[in-house]
Amino acid sequence: MGIVLGPNRYGKAEVRMVFVNRESPVHEITDVNVTSQLIGDFVDTHLTGANDAVIATDTQKNTVYALARTGGITSPEEFALRLARNFVDQYDQVTGARMAVEQFGWTRISTSAGPHDHAFAKGTEEKRTTVVVKDGAAEHVVSGLTGLVVLKSTGSEFWGFPQVDYTSLVETADRILATAVTATWVHSSTDLDWNATFTTIREALLEAFATTHSLSLQQTLYAMGKGALEAVPEVAEIRLSLPNKHHFLVDLDKWGLDNPNQVFFAADRPYGLIEAAIVREEAPVPTGIWAAAGLFA
Amino acid sequence: MGIVLGPNRYGKAEVRMVFVNRESPVHEITDVNVTSQLIGDFVDTHLTGANDAVIATDTQKNTVYALARTGGITSPEEFALRLARNFVDQYDQVTGARMAVEQFGWTRISTSAGPHDHAFAKGTEEKRTTVVVKDGAAEHVVSGLTGLVVLKSTGSEFWGFPQVDYTSLVETADRILATAVTATWVHSSTDLDWNATFTTIREALLEAFATTHSLSLQQTLYAMGKGALEAVPEVAEIRLSLPNKHHFLVDLDKWGLDNPNQVFFAADRPYGLIEAAIVREEAPVPTGIWAAAGLFA
Amino acid sequence: MGIVLGPNRYGKAEVRMVFVNRESPVHEITDVNVTSQLIGDFVDTHLTGANDAVIATDTQKNTVYALARTGGITSPEEFALRLARNFVDQYDQVTGARMAVEQFGWTRISTSAGPHDHAFAKGTEEKRTTVVVKDGAAEHVVSGLTGLVVLKSTGSEFWGFPQVDYTSLVETADRILATAVTATWVHSSTDLDWNATFTTIREALLEAFATTHSLSLQQTLYAMGKGALEAVPEVAEIRLSLPNKHHFLVDLDKWGLDNPNQVFFAADRPYGLIEAAIVREEAPVPTGIWAAAGLFA
Amino acid sequence: MGIVLGPNRYGKAEVRMVFVNRESPVHEITDVNVTSQLIGDFVDTHLTGANDAVIATDTQKNTVYALARTGGITSPEEFALRLARNFVDQYDQVTGARMAVEQFGWTRISTSAGPHDHAFAKGTEEKRTTVVVKDGAAEHVVSGLTGLVVLKSTGSEFWGFPQVDYTSLVETADRILATAVTATWVHSSTDLDWNATFTTIREALLEAFATTHSLSLQQTLYAMGKGALEAVPEVAEIRLSLPNKHHFLVDLDKWGLDNPNQVFFAADRPYGLIEAAIVREEAPVPTGIWAAAGLFA
Repeated sequence: MGIVLGPNRYGKAEVRMVFVNRESPVHEITDVNVTSQLIGDFVDTHLTGANDAVIATDTQKNTVYALARTGGITSPEEFALRLARNFVDQYDQVTGARMAVEQFGWTRISTSAGPHDHAFAKGTEEKRTTVVVKDGAAEHVVSGLTGLVVLKSTGSEFWGFPQVDYTSLVETADRILATAVTATWVHSSTDLDWNATFTTIREALLEAFATTHSLSLQQTLYAMGKGALEAVPEVAEIRLSLPNKHHFLVDLDKWGLDNPNQVFFAADRPYGLIEAAIVREEAPVPTGIWAAAGLFA
Repeated sequence: MGIVLGPNRYGKAEVRMVFVNRESPVHEITDVNVTSQLIGDFVDTHLTGANDAVIATDTQKNTVYALARTGGITSPEEFALRLARNFVDQYDQVTGARMAVEQFGWTRISTSAGPHDHAFAKGTEEKRTTVVVKDGAAEHVVSGLTGLVVLKSTGSEFWGFPQVDYTSLVETADRILATAVTATWVHSSTDLDWNATFTTIREALLEAFATTHSLSLQQTLYAMGKGALEAVPEVAEIRLSLPNKHHFLVDLDKWGLDNPNQVFFAADRPYGLIEAAIVREEAPVPTGIWAAAGLFA
Repeated sequence: MGIVLGPNRYGKAEVRMVFVNRESPVHEITDVNVTSQLIGDFVDTHLTGANDAVIATDTQKNTVYALARTGGITSPEEFALRLARNFVDQYDQVTGARMAVEQFGWTRISTSAGPHDHAFAKGTEEKRTTVVVKDGAAEHVVSGLTGLVVLKSTGSEFWGFPQVDYTSLVETADRILATAVTATWVHSSTDLDWNATFTTIREALLEAFATTHSLSLQQTLYAMGKGALEAVPEVAEIRLSLPNKHHFLVDLDKWGLDNPNQVFFAADRPYGLIEAAIVREEAPVPTGIWAAAGLFA
Repeated sequence: MGIVLGPNRYGKAEVRMVFVNRESPVHEITDVNVTSQLIGDFVDTHLTGANDAVIATDTQKNTVYALARTGGITSPEEFALRLARNFVDQYDQVTGARMAVEQFGWTRISTSAGPHDHAFAKGTEEKRTTVVVKDGAAEHVVSGLTGLVVLKSTGSEFWGFPQVDYTSLVETADRILATAVTATWVHSSTDLDWNATFTTIREALLEAFATTHSLSLQQTLYAMGKGALEAVPEVAEIRLSLPNKHHFLVDLDKWGLDNPNQVFFAADRPYGLIEAAIVREEAPVPTGIWAAAGLFA
């Protein structure tokens, strides 16, 4: 039959950690969700259950905490790199690693006496994301964001599409355009100011979304990706996945009411789904990086 | 047997509507989730399926849209009152109504040219809530918020609790205190500046959470409720439901590392749950109002 | 100002526990989610943070585990009663308790050698629910189920409703009827065969849903509640909350296709929501019980 | 700069459809969630917003409904193939397609008169999954299941792992093993009895999970995959993603109670995550198929 073990990885998922920086009385908090996965020679545990090579997933969890204590967390990227190197450099049987970090935002609470030293309110559903893919000495840092929900109440059209089988959609020169941005980008370096880079790209995405007069969500997507690549030369490629969160104009005609783009039904499902990569022609990113960074399938 | 129909109500739940105010080129959006329920003489449809009295739930949905078009939405409270009166005043068989509105926050996107006229980013998971309970001529407006997640990285203690059967918790003079605030309050009037009132109470809740040095989450809860009642005389009673979102200090001792309140595990379940009403002694709110509003009583 | 503490309760929510009965090699598992809340004289902790009276929520959690070990779990009702009595009977300051238990279903995995001794597959999203409300010596047992999703592909009509303002719904003599049943009932006794009672009521609900030719969801609801009360004399009252999970017939006319009740769009939101109590005329359940149980009242 | 459009696809996601087969009075229902995405020459809409080539996502949605009406749904695989061929064969600019179908299970309600003709109860959270990847004439059918939650109350050990930095896990010879199976497999044919194949593989997975005495979740995973490949020769490769849903034995020692593997805490996060492919040595599946079938990143 020739049945054998193929690609595999294992680890501890969703280690929820809050790190408090107390160097000054004005605390800073870093709230992350860390997933550690190791790649290497783990045939034995699969075939016979012999675990001599298996760095326990519980150990991986403890390592997340310990490395936060010993080195702090200045950015999800730096932390993920440190984790990946810790495992690959230390254990012979570990030839690669995939470290994923999600970061949740918090803002300082405003009180009558000003911003509070150690009281915070949680931010939006947006998460900053990082995946470090390490294969031997080769390292790739993939960053992104997800859950950034945005909406334009005008400045969006959609017309000119072909009238083919089963087409009934009506053309429009003014619609609501809303989406939840998932953006992911690969860096051409492993030594950047990760927080500055992230902020720059996020601003470029928002600027393009807001200021592009949209003839299709595809056009908006491309403008967003182009803006990001133009803003940060060290970004080799960016991928965007944009659900078209439909807002349908409610027809009030039958009761003698007009509806000049005021009252909309916000639909749940189905939704449009527009996905594309914006790339630099001269520096393609290996497909394997995207596969490794993405979900295992 | 004497089996009969008891209390009942029916309607359309979760009508998702975005209302765009386009009076000026600087648009405003109001994003709500409306649930309409009617109370009255609906015995027939339950016993025989005769629907002569049944204002269809689809009609209730259409009414939400139509009343948004004809009167706009200045606040969830005003809109819920208008909906309730529309049904109770218009139909003999409808003797009461329960109208619930959740409102989602959006902020204007900042661009290089300043705040954008018609591009918005969705706010946090916090929702502003309203339930209007109308029983004949009697009307009660219940307002609130839910999903306001807050955290203090210090300024919280917990000790002095009795050592009884199955107690193993260790006393602490410094812990993270985190919760997701659900607050609900009943007004003694149906004619207030709802948006101003809401903002005042929300600020009072945050001020008390941030500035109370906490010896128990109960103490913090009481301070929050007291602050709200003191801030707005027209609030007759406030109820708070506060999950204690535990953040456990990670023990790194076994590897020779200390952990001076820096590295925490953010637990999902179980969680503490602290619930209480803060009331005005002289003006008790009828229990039925809380029951009708659908809240902890 | 006269601001004082009103009704309050506190405890540990969502203690996730799996209990394995290993009395025979053919294991049985009980998978529950327990919420323990105590009521009593807890003014001090609210006003001053003095915790002398506070049975720690962590202690309540430990008690859940310990009482499972010492007495097993034969039913959620019996276990919740035992927990409530443990706290109220043991501590002077605890005058009441609310113990809630959700139970998840598992089925034995079938193998080529027959049903397996100790391997199980998780059941549906349906949960069996219990709330025991204890106020001094008075005890009420509230049982129920939630998440029981059912659908009839025919045998449901809806017509005869009034044509009023904003009505546009079309009458139908054949539609899909689908709902997710939440049923809750109060017993007139605290000493029943809880598992047998539960099974009998669940079967009565399903029988009525399936066999009632429906002219409205209200009619189906009433038949379900009536069936339950008729099946178990010790049930004093039952409340049902039935979302009308709309399945809209897709209009294929414009492409020359008919659609004889074959192709439906399953909508998410909005949905109808039908709620009612079915009661015994001679034995009304105090409203306070429903409020304490935390349900529609 | 050389910024250009890279890989892209677009369509309508999560078209929720229930198809009722009414050929006999004993109805059958098929409940699916369909995502249609097209691949091809769509540069214009991205760069200029010209939509001449864009088959509207609304049209794709309508096509899902129409093809269900004209051809019925015998299996998700057959339906996804039909959809993919419809788009690729019909439109020049469409060179490829990705059609994903999730199917939800329903069981017939048992009544006192036997299994009901047209009343159903929803099954577990398990979903049957299918992705058809079509690239020109090349077609791959990927099938799977997700959300199959299983648990063994004994017959699972974990020991022999290395004691390295930050290891504190205690070895065990008897633990609960629980997981939520996500399995995905690629067929070497596009013309199979899809329903029979699915049933055979699902049974092989459950048989291996239940009957393997487990020394590691990796070993169980491999046995499951091997069982599936042995059962169906037309499966070229299978990938399994198994979260290790930890159930921790509760320590009751401090209160003088033993706990002989009876009382467990079911943890939410973090969890182990074991992922591997089981392959046929002689017939590797191109990585691109997995990337196309999986989530876009």
